[in-house]
Amino acid sequence: MRELQVGLKEASYPILIGEGLLQEPSRWADYAGSLAVVVTQPSVEQAYARPIAECLGDVCRGVYVFPDGETHKTLDDLEGLYRYLLEQRLGRDVTLIAVGGGVVGDMTGFAAATYMRGVRFVQAPTTLLAQVDASVGGKTGVNHTLGKNMSGAFWQPQAVLIDPLTLSTLPERELRAGLAEVIKYGLLGDADFFAWLEENLDAVLALDPDAVAQAIETSCACKARIVEADERESSGQRALLNLGHTFAHAIETEQGYAQWHHGEAVACGMVMAADLSVRMKWLTAEQSERARRLIERAELPVNLPEDLTVARLCEHMQHDKKNIGGRQRFVLMRAIGQAELTDQVEPELLQATLRLAGAR
Amino acid sequence: MRELQVGLKEASYPILIGEGLLQEPSRWADYAGSLAVVVTQPSVEQAYARPIAECLGDVCRGVYVFPDGETHKTLDDLEGLYRYLLEQRLGRDVTLIAVGGGVVGDMTGFAAATYMRGVRFVQAPTTLLAQVDASVGGKTGVNHTLGKNMSGAFWQPQAVLIDPLTLSTLPERELRAGLAEVIKYGLLGDADFFAWLEENLDAVLALDPDAVAQAIETSCACKARIVEADERESSGQRALLNLGHTFAHAIETEQGYAQWHHGEAVACGMVMAADLSVRMKWLTAEQSERARRLIERAELPVNLPEDLTVARLCEHMQHDKKNIGGRQRFVLMRAIGQAELTDQVEPELLQATLRLAGAR
Repeated sequence: MRELQVGLKEASYPILIGEGLLQEPSRWADYAGSLAVVVTQPSVEQAYARPIAECLGDVCRGVYVFPDGETHKTLDDLEGLYRYLLEQRLGRDVTLIAVGGGVVGDMTGFAAATYMRGVRFVQAPTTLLAQVDASVGGKTGVNHTLGKNMSGAFWQPQAVLIDPLTLSTLPERELRAGLAEVIKYGLLGDADFFAWLEENLDAVLALDPDAVAQAIETSCACKARIVEADERESSGQRALLNLGHTFAHAIETEQGYAQWHHGEAVACGMVMAADLSVRMKWLTAEQSERARRLIERAELPVNLPEDLTVARLCEHMQHDKKNIGGRQRFVLMRAIGQAELTDQVEPELLQATLRLAGAR
Repeated sequence: MRELQVGLKEASYPILIGEGLLQEPSRWADYAGSLAVVVTQPSVEQAYARPIAECLGDVCRGVYVFPDGETHKTLDDLEGLYRYLLEQRLGRDVTLIAVGGGVVGDMTGFAAATYMRGVRFVQAPTTLLAQVDASVGGKTGVNHTLGKNMSGAFWQPQAVLIDPLTLSTLPERELRAGLAEVIKYGLLGDADFFAWLEENLDAVLALDPDAVAQAIETSCACKARIVEADERESSGQRALLNLGHTFAHAIETEQGYAQWHHGEAVACGMVMAADLSVRMKWLTAEQSERARRLIERAELPVNLPEDLTVARLCEHMQHDKKNIGGRQRFVLMRAIGQAELTDQVEPELLQATLRLAGAR
């Protein structure tokens, strides 16, 4: 088993990575407290959530199932979980256990942050995206029709338990979407890891156990390093994790979160960030091409979906949470493995990048 | 002007108390940042919120008005504020300024805690209840049809600005309701203050400026002392602030928050807490009678509203956030000025107290 400690000022917790981990009752005894509710989604309820509830025995007071998908990451859906917890008469001593993808993790975390002003929670992410992204950082929240993750809170789990075996039941499209975030860590802060991915992409896609565990561990460690340096996103550092995300959020807002997976939007966003970096004369065309090639090999989109316009995308981007005082900020690359925040992007360069990616 | 510093581990901020304070542009320049939205309610919009918006000048991007009243302290109403902020394209650099009663303060605080995962806020409470209660402690939240303040967060303001002149336009019933919480501080932790209130109740009710400012300052200082010792309600200490509240929340939940004011329910709850304390042999009948008499002099209810049953009230109380592991906990009095938490209340004593107060 691999273990990684995330050390934050407000809380410190372990990320455990190991095959079969979720089925070990002793693990759950360590983190679930005396009273727990498992929160999950239909697609993993039978395979993972119910077995975990069994492991928990009497401690488990029920399994709550959110509808699948990002379109259900709303205040209304959250209200359903509050209602369930209240109807069960559960108090501040309950521990919420999130079993599923990023949506379940974000919503369960937000519910934990706000139910009776805060209860404990444990993450058991079952998608690659959630394993490498939502495991670290304490970001929780729900979407709004006017923007992604617009209501939320920072709230840290007691522990994150990752079983790479869960990826064997993950639809391949979701596995590839998760890979986008894995590639992101190489691009933004670890050139060696990027080179390792160029070597080992096929092994990861084939779910070679060592390669998968290595990819998850390195990604989590990279994110932990950045989050530890900037817990509340107050210095610019944490914003680096948003490489590709300014573009991705604009795509997702325009699509109403319903068509592309988040990771697919991020993949396309990273290709655009690399292209814009070249236009800014930050990155060589050759390095940008390496980024694009790896993303393409992962069969992730490198061009925008059809029918998006430059004007609409720019409008959404002006609404990004990273912006300060009306100035638009982007995470771009000085080199593979070296991202940087800038508010010096000329609108013409941005528009050229959007057009090259297929915007009208 | 009186000034009090609340010193918490997570944040430290001033409470300023002074006549005319809200109309001083220089004050607002200190705390409102470069971008602000005033959040208020219809009953004080013209008298206080608009003048504050004027003081803020260009910094103010708008005035958002919640509907009046505790029945509008819901997730749905909160969603209206999120929508407003998003439509105005406001980012993380916005400061929310709550002008109004406890509902506006709690909801604005919760919005500040969760909008884009946290923005700054300033409190300008205009009711006595909000001035002495919501100013200190960082509790924010909304109600649920199944319970009061069931979703929320701890979030500290940049500053609290209290102008006692705002009480001159407060309906007398609300002034009296606020007095219930003032009396509470005497009962739970400050026998001298309780005696001072016995002497000065009429002056406070007549809005004598010195008496009012003194009552507000002493109440805030008492609450600050307790909150500083127990920021997140982890030791039992902070629970002492809930004197009378276990009963009050049961009354309010039963009434759907629509009939009695919160302070009225607390007043009645404190009389019941005193009675139960006597039955527990903690408090002398004479001291209980002093508590009851002061509450009566403030023309606050000392008996339950009609048509409540012992069974329903007990059911609501079993649902209290203070309870741990299914055991019911009450804040009772050892003496005037000395409250204590207990989980040793026999159901028969509780039922006798409820019946004496008028429950069927």
